[in-house]
Amino acid sequence: MLNHQFRLTSRPAGAVKRSDFAYAGEEVRALADGEVLIQIQYISLDPAMRGWMNASENSYMPPVAIGDVMRAIAAGKVIDTRNAGFAVGDHVTGLLGVQEYAISSGQGLFKVDPALAPLPLFLGTLGMTGMTAYFGLLDVGQPKQGDTVVVSGAAGAVGSTVGQIARIKGARVVGIAGGADKCRYLVEELGFDAAIDYKTENVAAALKQHCPQGVDVFFDNVGGEILDTVLTQLAMQARVVVCGAISQYNSLEAIKGPSNYLQIMVKRATLRGVMVADYYPRAKEAITDMAGWIRAGQLKTREDVVPGLETFPETFQKLFDGSNNGKLVLRVG
Amino acid sequence: MLNHQFRLTSRPAGAVKRSDFAYAGEEVRALADGEVLIQIQYISLDPAMRGWMNASENSYMPPVAIGDVMRAIAAGKVIDTRNAGFAVGDHVTGLLGVQEYAISSGQGLFKVDPALAPLPLFLGTLGMTGMTAYFGLLDVGQPKQGDTVVVSGAAGAVGSTVGQIARIKGARVVGIAGGADKCRYLVEELGFDAAIDYKTENVAAALKQHCPQGVDVFFDNVGGEILDTVLTQLAMQARVVVCGAISQYNSLEAIKGPSNYLQIMVKRATLRGVMVADYYPRAKEAITDMAGWIRAGQLKTREDVVPGLETFPETFQKLFDGSNNGKLVLRVG
Repeated sequence: MLNHQFRLTSRPAGAVKRSDFAYAGEEVRALADGEVLIQIQYISLDPAMRGWMNASENSYMPPVAIGDVMRAIAAGKVIDTRNAGFAVGDHVTGLLGVQEYAISSGQGLFKVDPALAPLPLFLGTLGMTGMTAYFGLLDVGQPKQGDTVVVSGAAGAVGSTVGQIARIKGARVVGIAGGADKCRYLVEELGFDAAIDYKTENVAAALKQHCPQGVDVFFDNVGGEILDTVLTQLAMQARVVVCGAISQYNSLEAIKGPSNYLQIMVKRATLRGVMVADYYPRAKEAITDMAGWIRAGQLKTREDVVPGLETFPETFQKLFDGSNNGKLVLRVG
Repeated sequence: MLNHQFRLTSRPAGAVKRSDFAYAGEEVRALADGEVLIQIQYISLDPAMRGWMNASENSYMPPVAIGDVMRAIAAGKVIDTRNAGFAVGDHVTGLLGVQEYAISSGQGLFKVDPALAPLPLFLGTLGMTGMTAYFGLLDVGQPKQGDTVVVSGAAGAVGSTVGQIARIKGARVVGIAGGADKCRYLVEELGFDAAIDYKTENVAAALKQHCPQGVDVFFDNVGGEILDTVLTQLAMQARVVVCGAISQYNSLEAIKGPSNYLQIMVKRATLRGVMVADYYPRAKEAITDMAGWIRAGQLKTREDVVPGLETFPETFQKLFDGSNNGKLVLRVG
């Protein structure tokens, strides 16, 4: 049985190119005792993957080694098993890679029930993406009723979830996104109080208008200029949640640090990060809340499912040019 | 009675120049009801003053207006009073300005007892400087017994106090300072566990050597490259205390933000500022502790007292070229 895979062959300079990978088929080997064979159906495409391609010594995970299958979270079905914990037909998610089949020891493999929700949702709102939004906002950002919450990358998978959870918790929510369509979607479909189009608006002026009392919680997915601008508009005791810096991941130069970071001091604010892995023990709490909100129509999800494993390098790039609509997922087979 | 004063006449570009000020004498006016006349004896020279000279709209205090007496904390003696709260002969500290005499409403004026300690000490370790170190380290940094604390600007007034308090609280302390003399002083006289000379050493390599378990608390006075380097060496759950960024205050370009700020996320760290004004209600707690430690010989202080109000612009510059030794104070008269 042939397993088509994307292996990393060089560390991308700037945007990912097809030539940074080798795409080929390889025979699936026999299972050893304790192992599980998974047929991958959906692959989650996440900004963090860009970081995993770099040779960084200071990241939260080792880089993907040159020659290795590209790391990715994926969902699929168990088709063979020598592990008593998993039966043929089980659906699972885990770090299964950009490929058609994965062999797993069972460690880090989570069973999911496709009768409860479509499989891609377990890669999005009911998966890492949703948990990042949920714990990043509620545990790190700690919005109070009536607070003003600003989220960047607001139309993205994490950002759109953050904004809706903040609304559910009684905060005013302002999203920053690129393009009129995305901004309309945030306000008209997701119920954001306001949206700022960073491509056409003066973000500082728009923040002053929409956040006259300042920004109590800033959930940042993009970094760069937008982070710097929001730092000038913080309310006293603000919380800045650092989730990512997608504007910087393809930069050929050093990441642009926030010039206005002294505002953290001026405003008695706190800057902290969110690492979703820290919250795995509390996953059920998030999933239960979010599944309930989805059922109640309070939390809307949108998946951008692109067919074709072989499109991986180009499809991945949609995260960076902002052309994806919702949680970006690759459908395999 | 003639009152010599430094008035700000232009906003400095880069380092402060004498031509940014007008130095002249002006008659002291008669007191109104409720006012106090103070003869200034010592003026505290602090890095923060450089920020007060800029036309920033986002600072914790309004800028000094063009034409106004330069703002500074000072200590002196009441020589006339129409305020029942203050008697002639009382010694006081407050925001009295770079001048020989100040008239105060009594608000923000603190009585100090020169029998307990020399007056300059109330501008240093027993004043704002000491409180900044005390609360910034203990309240924001929260070092635990056995933690590794790193402080930049370690031979400065705040930094040297931070390091010694951290030692008293049972932490390992590594100071970063410029020059062999300062580093020797930190280790041999103040009992730091190690000191790194950023002018001659590779700071990242030295941090790896002296902080093999990573940096639990980083108290930053300097910003710029040193902040960026320490961010790569944080321990998990580290606390970064932002107290200042003296390396950046004279910059003609935008402040250099920390490129490595995503390490806050990777290391589940927290970045917070310290604003001493927030701790005024708890001043007694700090003063009592520190006066006790000074008496017990556990906390050493060093004041660099420079005579001559008229030397203000050049003396102030010592803070930025690192040529001051300890808390920099101008003696008036």
